[in-house]
Amino acid sequence: MTGVFDHPWLSGLFADDEIAALWSAEAQLSSMMAFEAAWSRHGHLAGLWSEKDGASAASAIRQVMLAPVALREGTAQDGVCVPALVQLLKQRTGSDAIHKGATSQDVIDTATVLSLVQSLDVLDQRVRLLLNNLSDLKGRFGGVTMMGRTRMQAAMPISVADRIETWRLPLLAHHDRLSQLRPRVALVQIGGAAGDRAALGDAADVLGAAVAQDLGLSSTSRSWHATRDGMAEAASVLSLITGSLGKMGQDICLMAQQGIDEITLAGGGGSSAMPHKQNPVLAELLVTLARFNATQVSGMHSAMIHEQERSGAAWSLEWMLLPQMAQATGRALNVAKSLVAQIEHIGTSDQLS
Amino acid sequence: MTGVFDHPWLSGLFADDEIAALWSAEAQLSSMMAFEAAWSRHGHLAGLWSEKDGASAASAIRQVMLAPVALREGTAQDGVCVPALVQLLKQRTGSDAIHKGATSQDVIDTATVLSLVQSLDVLDQRVRLLLNNLSDLKGRFGGVTMMGRTRMQAAMPISVADRIETWRLPLLAHHDRLSQLRPRVALVQIGGAAGDRAALGDAADVLGAAVAQDLGLSSTSRSWHATRDGMAEAASVLSLITGSLGKMGQDICLMAQQGIDEITLAGGGGSSAMPHKQNPVLAELLVTLARFNATQVSGMHSAMIHEQERSGAAWSLEWMLLPQMAQATGRALNVAKSLVAQIEHIGTSDQLS
Amino acid sequence: MTGVFDHPWLSGLFADDEIAALWSAEAQLSSMMAFEAAWSRHGHLAGLWSEKDGASAASAIRQVMLAPVALREGTAQDGVCVPALVQLLKQRTGSDAIHKGATSQDVIDTATVLSLVQSLDVLDQRVRLLLNNLSDLKGRFGGVTMMGRTRMQAAMPISVADRIETWRLPLLAHHDRLSQLRPRVALVQIGGAAGDRAALGDAADVLGAAVAQDLGLSSTSRSWHATRDGMAEAASVLSLITGSLGKMGQDICLMAQQGIDEITLAGGGGSSAMPHKQNPVLAELLVTLARFNATQVSGMHSAMIHEQERSGAAWSLEWMLLPQMAQATGRALNVAKSLVAQIEHIGTSDQLS
Amino acid sequence: MTGVFDHPWLSGLFADDEIAALWSAEAQLSSMMAFEAAWSRHGHLAGLWSEKDGASAASAIRQVMLAPVALREGTAQDGVCVPALVQLLKQRTGSDAIHKGATSQDVIDTATVLSLVQSLDVLDQRVRLLLNNLSDLKGRFGGVTMMGRTRMQAAMPISVADRIETWRLPLLAHHDRLSQLRPRVALVQIGGAAGDRAALGDAADVLGAAVAQDLGLSSTSRSWHATRDGMAEAASVLSLITGSLGKMGQDICLMAQQGIDEITLAGGGGSSAMPHKQNPVLAELLVTLARFNATQVSGMHSAMIHEQERSGAAWSLEWMLLPQMAQATGRALNVAKSLVAQIEHIGTSDQLS
Repeated sequence: MTGVFDHPWLSGLFADDEIAALWSAEAQLSSMMAFEAAWSRHGHLAGLWSEKDGASAASAIRQVMLAPVALREGTAQDGVCVPALVQLLKQRTGSDAIHKGATSQDVIDTATVLSLVQSLDVLDQRVRLLLNNLSDLKGRFGGVTMMGRTRMQAAMPISVADRIETWRLPLLAHHDRLSQLRPRVALVQIGGAAGDRAALGDAADVLGAAVAQDLGLSSTSRSWHATRDGMAEAASVLSLITGSLGKMGQDICLMAQQGIDEITLAGGGGSSAMPHKQNPVLAELLVTLARFNATQVSGMHSAMIHEQERSGAAWSLEWMLLPQMAQATGRALNVAKSLVAQIEHIGTSDQLS
Repeated sequence: MTGVFDHPWLSGLFADDEIAALWSAEAQLSSMMAFEAAWSRHGHLAGLWSEKDGASAASAIRQVMLAPVALREGTAQDGVCVPALVQLLKQRTGSDAIHKGATSQDVIDTATVLSLVQSLDVLDQRVRLLLNNLSDLKGRFGGVTMMGRTRMQAAMPISVADRIETWRLPLLAHHDRLSQLRPRVALVQIGGAAGDRAALGDAADVLGAAVAQDLGLSSTSRSWHATRDGMAEAASVLSLITGSLGKMGQDICLMAQQGIDEITLAGGGGSSAMPHKQNPVLAELLVTLARFNATQVSGMHSAMIHEQERSGAAWSLEWMLLPQMAQATGRALNVAKSLVAQIEHIGTSDQLS
Repeated sequence: MTGVFDHPWLSGLFADDEIAALWSAEAQLSSMMAFEAAWSRHGHLAGLWSEKDGASAASAIRQVMLAPVALREGTAQDGVCVPALVQLLKQRTGSDAIHKGATSQDVIDTATVLSLVQSLDVLDQRVRLLLNNLSDLKGRFGGVTMMGRTRMQAAMPISVADRIETWRLPLLAHHDRLSQLRPRVALVQIGGAAGDRAALGDAADVLGAAVAQDLGLSSTSRSWHATRDGMAEAASVLSLITGSLGKMGQDICLMAQQGIDEITLAGGGGSSAMPHKQNPVLAELLVTLARFNATQVSGMHSAMIHEQERSGAAWSLEWMLLPQMAQATGRALNVAKSLVAQIEHIGTSDQLS
Repeated sequence: MTGVFDHPWLSGLFADDEIAALWSAEAQLSSMMAFEAAWSRHGHLAGLWSEKDGASAASAIRQVMLAPVALREGTAQDGVCVPALVQLLKQRTGSDAIHKGATSQDVIDTATVLSLVQSLDVLDQRVRLLLNNLSDLKGRFGGVTMMGRTRMQAAMPISVADRIETWRLPLLAHHDRLSQLRPRVALVQIGGAAGDRAALGDAADVLGAAVAQDLGLSSTSRSWHATRDGMAEAASVLSLITGSLGKMGQDICLMAQQGIDEITLAGGGGSSAMPHKQNPVLAELLVTLARFNATQVSGMHSAMIHEQERSGAAWSLEWMLLPQMAQATGRALNVAKSLVAQIEHIGTSDQLS
């Protein structure tokens, strides 16, 4: 349990159950099997097998129950889980109308995309909700004055609305970014052994479109096995979101200082040594999650240097980074919402009169 | 001379003269003075001074000749160059209808944006040119076969077109990203002392629009002093571009290996010890530049955690990172173009028949 | 299950069971309770309670059985698990001679150090074992010639020993680094509420020494709550180790290419689409793990900017990064060992005669 | 002028003239020529030329005056400056007893090491000086009380000495780290074309020792062309130093807030909009430099993945990162010293009585 997101107690602080469910092993396995079922169902379009055999296999695949751990040994051996998965599916269904013409990366990338796109949708909903919450907050306290601070020094009085807008406005841009990103990543992955769909002949596009439709994704004219700009862009957008929320968290930490006293928060974390303290735990957590994603995004960009038709090294690096970034982003949005709800007052009290 | 971009000999390898000129001290100073001239010219709209005094000051500012080094001492003292600049402009012009109602960050950020947006335009032109060059390359050699390689192992024969498409297709997406990014960063910065435009009253929007128009930028309803998502997104897009080119460079390094022999390059770097060698220097350089930007992008995301109305610490970090990222990106596109031009043959020669 | 180290099937590729056990929630909880037991036992030295009450509490703490998940809710509330832990320990033991004078960070940092130091010992053993394995490999194949390659181009023939030495020699330095690092991190954390041991009076050193001895750590003259150079240095050394192994992995990937054929590996990963392939999965994994740690190390250095007496934000960032870095390093050393064992031949076969 | 360290006005804030001089193009060129002179002088030991010819060449090399820019074109062509340098040296001296048996990386890495080791010596002196300055500060104000703050909340009163010790103590560890690092990097680089010293035969060690002695470095039994753990460790130590200073800077920024008022600084940066402000520019700069190095260190670790006998891609990445890290570290130490000198009072004034 070396990861905070899956940790028995640290998950209380770091985990986002909804996003975690979208990236869970169970969800990934389910998505991989959905790909294989769609592939079996439509493979006849490329002459991989008969329509009847494919339909039968697809139907059987949907009945198979697999424990995620069943793929562990195969992953250790092959570096990917798909050879073991395909073998198990063939055993369990008794069908050979499975996977032919596809490759491991088709299955895994498509499953990753499904987790990612569903995550982006959840994140976008939360961005819009947080926009509303911050608008409400502005409505409640926007007219209060507080000290504007630049370079950590008192500058000139501003309104609370001015400060809140620095938290709220980037969310509008993030919503746009999510909308612009989505069509660049909501893509089925179909390439086959060397990424060129050679096994599918002229029917590659037809088969691709059918599989994509089953999965609620778009099809592409080529595989994107080795062109990872979409994945790195997705990571960038995730980190942009947490970066903005980190700014809000940092501000609230600073506002909550004794002597500054520009915010009153309900709740707050207790101390084992000082029962009187009310630590702005959620505000700090926003900073932590922002710095976490700002760290990880570097690796996702580095993983774009993806040699030839498939880089085992660079591709595996994405597996280590992207799911945690998604969960950190989801968590940050939930934390921000909770933190806004904790705000009982904002602005300098002695300037209220 | 600790930076490779400004180094007497390393600049031969790393510098992009066109992008360097856009970020030069002279260009930055010129942009800052353009901001101040526009501010003087339109300040009367907010009652900062009379239209006549403002016009006179604007005209005088345009005549002032300043050496960049004149701002050094003031920058050391204040952490920003603008107080010294404003003092010099007032001395030289004899006018007081200067800068009032604006702040250092308005001037510096607007100048940075001008360098950035001009850079983005240059980069986009180069992206489109490289798209053409790669299309031509595909036209010449696309039908040749070569070995497709996955996980650094021979997989199945592919066409050279398949490989080239992994270099070309991301450029289409980068063009879209640049188009989508542009309106989020081509923004004048106007905030005043604490970012709230308090000194401008109801005329803030009118003044902002006029200044923006003079400078060829868009105006905004608020300052973006403390909301740096646009800057971090710009850095991300720069790094996405170099990442894709790094993949192309890595591929070409691998193709140029003796024993693989999938590419023939004209030119190539000489060795001081082995005159027979032809090192794929430009291909390696693409990898270097990609890893450089993938490193820097992390700092730009970290700099989003920008406390209160202005963070001296986070803002200054952008100064250290973004100009170099822009130059690395420009250089990578130029290198890619030169590298494509060096290609004499691509594909496995013994599979040509 | 968003982390590869804890994932049902990806753990087959990424997990190191021995290091994972050292960082498991169970181990962390056990270490925290060991700290509390030692604290109770020796607290009388600072007059926190009577020797008898302390001994009784220490004995009772050792009998307490806690499920890690019992700390989840408290962690969510307080941002740290210790308030909940202390409350549970007091409930279960019925004693109050617990924790007084200490603080959450004392408990958690000390537990982290125990996991870290035990990990460093395991890693050092593996470093030395790998040194031997590489010496053996050099003994078997060192005299064979192979092509030396610089800038990815054939340069001059070298001996296989020359290549192996580039893998082996850094391990000697890593052993030295681990030895030099150890005394800087194998330190009990004792600071109390604000890090100054105020509650312990003149007995702070005596109590600290006693607790440290119980736990097999060294004591310090002050707390290191806010001075995280040791943690960041540890992360750096971890990443230096994986970096060296990544170079070995990269080399082996390159040597295993068809057309280069400088290494023969037994085993290797299978492909779902190409049964004939033998992918150098472990060699690629070394590259992945090196890039992973090179990414994470940045965040650990960033977390040194630890404000005042305790930074919740920076400290929590360490929790997200260090355990995974330790596991990645352990895994890399195991992978390197397995990979060396897979080598059936190394060097260019046609130069053997 | 895209780099802040070489910038006409930003250098006023960021540059460290002493470290800059050690990494200047002139210094690098001088060091490369010193290597070549030593090589010529001692090459007869390996039979590369006669003792007389070598001595004559060495003497002549010392007389050659070269402008750094003379190497620009060659660097653009070859990716390294050494082929151009050697050609120029041969032309100017009329001697052929130059460079034979060595390679570009020998020359450049040795020159880099000379800049690095001299920098480490300067940094260590500054670390020790800052230790003294902080001890003095503790002497002056250590007994004053101030509020201890954890998680950005008031915790318990501490003494100013407690806070200062969190700035001072890591410097002791950094001194030790610098001492331990030095022998791992103060190494001449001698490898020849493929790193194996093949051209030097049995005399490699004797020649290496003689050249090393001339340059004030240690010799090694093998080249370290492809084993970059020393360079990455050096970068790590640089970043550990700036990280500690960043913590001090962050603290001082927080202490200087109005409402907190725990420090009084003389000087401070002015504002173009608010003449009354005294911005804690130097304290902020320490944070900036710490985050800069924490960003760069990732790339230096990534550059350890150095394929085969020499990686042009990874090696060039070091050139982009390490000199700037050295200068950032030197600057941070100077800034810290200036900042300590600016402190007029520290601690909470109303607790002085």
